[in-house]
Amino acid sequence: MLKVDLNCDMGESFGAWTLGNDAALMEVVSSINVACGFHAGDATVMRQTVETAVAKNVAIGAHPSFPDLQGFGRREMSLSPKEIFDVTLYQVSALQGIIRAHGGKLHHVKPHGALYNSAAKSAEKAAAIACAVKMVDQDLILYGLSGSALISEAEKIGLRTASEVFADRTYQADGSLTSRAQPNALIEDAQTAVAQVLEILAANMVTATNGTKVQLKAETICLHGDSIHALRFAQAIRESLSRNDVLIEPL
Amino acid sequence: MLKVDLNCDMGESFGAWTLGNDAALMEVVSSINVACGFHAGDATVMRQTVETAVAKNVAIGAHPSFPDLQGFGRREMSLSPKEIFDVTLYQVSALQGIIRAHGGKLHHVKPHGALYNSAAKSAEKAAAIACAVKMVDQDLILYGLSGSALISEAEKIGLRTASEVFADRTYQADGSLTSRAQPNALIEDAQTAVAQVLEILAANMVTATNGTKVQLKAETICLHGDSIHALRFAQAIRESLSRNDVLIEPL
Amino acid sequence: MLKVDLNCDMGESFGAWTLGNDAALMEVVSSINVACGFHAGDATVMRQTVETAVAKNVAIGAHPSFPDLQGFGRREMSLSPKEIFDVTLYQVSALQGIIRAHGGKLHHVKPHGALYNSAAKSAEKAAAIACAVKMVDQDLILYGLSGSALISEAEKIGLRTASEVFADRTYQADGSLTSRAQPNALIEDAQTAVAQVLEILAANMVTATNGTKVQLKAETICLHGDSIHALRFAQAIRESLSRNDVLIEPL
Amino acid sequence: MLKVDLNCDMGESFGAWTLGNDAALMEVVSSINVACGFHAGDATVMRQTVETAVAKNVAIGAHPSFPDLQGFGRREMSLSPKEIFDVTLYQVSALQGIIRAHGGKLHHVKPHGALYNSAAKSAEKAAAIACAVKMVDQDLILYGLSGSALISEAEKIGLRTASEVFADRTYQADGSLTSRAQPNALIEDAQTAVAQVLEILAANMVTATNGTKVQLKAETICLHGDSIHALRFAQAIRESLSRNDVLIEPL
Repeated sequence: MLKVDLNCDMGESFGAWTLGNDAALMEVVSSINVACGFHAGDATVMRQTVETAVAKNVAIGAHPSFPDLQGFGRREMSLSPKEIFDVTLYQVSALQGIIRAHGGKLHHVKPHGALYNSAAKSAEKAAAIACAVKMVDQDLILYGLSGSALISEAEKIGLRTASEVFADRTYQADGSLTSRAQPNALIEDAQTAVAQVLEILAANMVTATNGTKVQLKAETICLHGDSIHALRFAQAIRESLSRNDVLIEPL
Repeated sequence: MLKVDLNCDMGESFGAWTLGNDAALMEVVSSINVACGFHAGDATVMRQTVETAVAKNVAIGAHPSFPDLQGFGRREMSLSPKEIFDVTLYQVSALQGIIRAHGGKLHHVKPHGALYNSAAKSAEKAAAIACAVKMVDQDLILYGLSGSALISEAEKIGLRTASEVFADRTYQADGSLTSRAQPNALIEDAQTAVAQVLEILAANMVTATNGTKVQLKAETICLHGDSIHALRFAQAIRESLSRNDVLIEPL
Repeated sequence: MLKVDLNCDMGESFGAWTLGNDAALMEVVSSINVACGFHAGDATVMRQTVETAVAKNVAIGAHPSFPDLQGFGRREMSLSPKEIFDVTLYQVSALQGIIRAHGGKLHHVKPHGALYNSAAKSAEKAAAIACAVKMVDQDLILYGLSGSALISEAEKIGLRTASEVFADRTYQADGSLTSRAQPNALIEDAQTAVAQVLEILAANMVTATNGTKVQLKAETICLHGDSIHALRFAQAIRESLSRNDVLIEPL
Repeated sequence: MLKVDLNCDMGESFGAWTLGNDAALMEVVSSINVACGFHAGDATVMRQTVETAVAKNVAIGAHPSFPDLQGFGRREMSLSPKEIFDVTLYQVSALQGIIRAHGGKLHHVKPHGALYNSAAKSAEKAAAIACAVKMVDQDLILYGLSGSALISEAEKIGLRTASEVFADRTYQADGSLTSRAQPNALIEDAQTAVAQVLEILAANMVTATNGTKVQLKAETICLHGDSIHALRFAQAIRESLSRNDVLIEPL
């Protein structure tokens, strides 16, 4: 039987500002990535998110970011690998402690936004993140873009990884995501998205936009739920996967 | 044989700004309180401070604060007990993880500045801090002003405490510190300071400014080292205590 | 003919987080208070808010706050009067420059949240704010709680003031607002709110919760628009005032 | 008679942290660049720096930065040109208001650190800064690296510029600064530094490290004073220039 993890970013409110449909999304996904205060998620939001997640028994991951609240961690910042190690260690540690205080256990780490993209391409930065994660707990799973430097650097030091794919994005012949600048970057129909996911799960292959078959490993699928539209899309993906006998559970 | 802990705040640099004489002070004290990013101490400073402290084998504590970088955590902020719980849990967790990653163990927690003063007077706020500390690790020691609400609330929930006294401050007949607004608030002579400490250690008593003897428990003494003068004063205290056969070690 | 200003807080989004119904509210009020980056409103939000407000020709004011993004400026902070002067001068200056760059003119200043409440009670803090405002431009109008220290201190140094009242809050016999802890603190019916406003405008009197008539000056009325309910309430107030021949315009 | 401006960064303390020898440096330079709160310089530091500078009658400029306190504005951040426009407008406006409140006048703008370097290379980012500066006051002077995109974009929109050179850095044959990664990047001898400055001032030429003569315009020289060594070097440069009959004054 095929199986896969569905993950989603959560706890991205901050102070008086709320963002996302966390309660509804926790019913859809099998694992969550919780903001750690650097791009979103203050200490109160983190504690509340963890309390709910522990009660619902979803797998909880840390979602560390560059220190950029105003830019929501989406702007590349030229931190050195050493600095990336430090901010990752700090953020993952903070979330781990909050989870343990509530009787849960940190399950994984997935870098956020620009840090995720940086670590997909730079082996040095990827290694810094992987090393910080391993120092926190060698049993943690590192989520990264399928085929990226983050996955390969984590494997080099013996860390478990989860190769992430996107249900709602098309792929190029080299296995990269089609740039959002292209008109066909997004898959807006849930059935097409599910078909893509099923193809990847069954064959470790995806059909690129030019028709080529490309090798691709999928252990976790990234879902979004920040808008009502995104939440419905996520729910449709889950239902279709279930109907197609795919077991949805964390790694 | 009398014994006491000497503690000092550390890791209070931030980014390009350096503060304190941490390396020299680590030779003087038996335990340190490490800033956790809210009033000072970014992730890099914290990691560096922890690395050094683990190597030198001093007892490492967390030094959580109100979120006020510009005010260095010295300005009272009206956080609710719930918010105080949350920011304490976050900061202590972050430091704990960094220490564990470097093979050490978190030893204690001492609130910083305005948070320390708030928790000395407000039972509700003190209870919030004590509860957060206990949830991180029930074996942690909570440092607080001798005779304060922080000590009594921590004891109520079964947490170990360390009653803190000041070598360089005079006391009032009710056991409180003489306000810094008073001319006789500070003890500027190391020998007088040591005499005060020895009296407290030997008799659990201090002589107040009006000559009254007041009961006071001393398990840890707060030293400062931010200026060269303060560092010399701290060194003199340590040497005098040693000469007077007081054993200096963490609780 | 009676006349009054209707004011509302705006520009309280931050980065990826949006808050409020600014576009709709600009049609309802005659003056707005724009967040200046310390409790909300980053540089991009400020510029966008100012662009819209200049185009719509509403009177634009600065809405300075304590530096507390996570607490949205609602938590009292013990800044000294000197520090309050400094943060007010900085924030008002920043907004003034953005407005001038877009061909507009800064019209007034209204402190936000905990700073507003502090300045209502403390003459020293009120004087610090008034002094900073006057140094930016002696023709600025300072908005403050009717009957508060902020109004009296501003008048002492010759600054123009706008006495603010609340349409949706009840008053006590001493002229203060009924605490939100009381069940009858809020007026939830728009007609009652309008009746209260009309009484104040016509007679400089308000009927306190115990039936007493209290003197009260009203030059500007604070409206809220952060929820759809609040927006509808604000619209109802405006329509009722217009039907009752009250001229709505900035001072 | 040859003349040149000597400029220096100032007001880079923050809260409890002090940095630099501002008082001594104000005697050495003819213009200063004041941090605006994004990489250093809180509202209190800015006000104090401006008070002193107005009293001493030095030309005061704004020193806006990327929003990165921990990185001291030295880390490249991928802000869009629109975002760069917004943060520049905010910071320059804040300082301008503080200066006007103290009876002075903003003289120039010099971007800081990574923002300065970005604007030297990217015409789009340079144009965003120049446009923001012009909108604040079309008479402001924009300081930028001699020969950079910042200078040419500012000139395109009719803004006055000051071409900046470095006394303590060597140049390459293409007019760029020798990378700090190279052993001969820095000039550590004051007399060599002065000779380089005199050559540039007299002939608009500099001798590159390979012996080539390169065209270079120098209207302002950047001095550093953050260490005692740097301060002495700056003083030596000033004295040597004076002895060589170079008039030191702001543009």
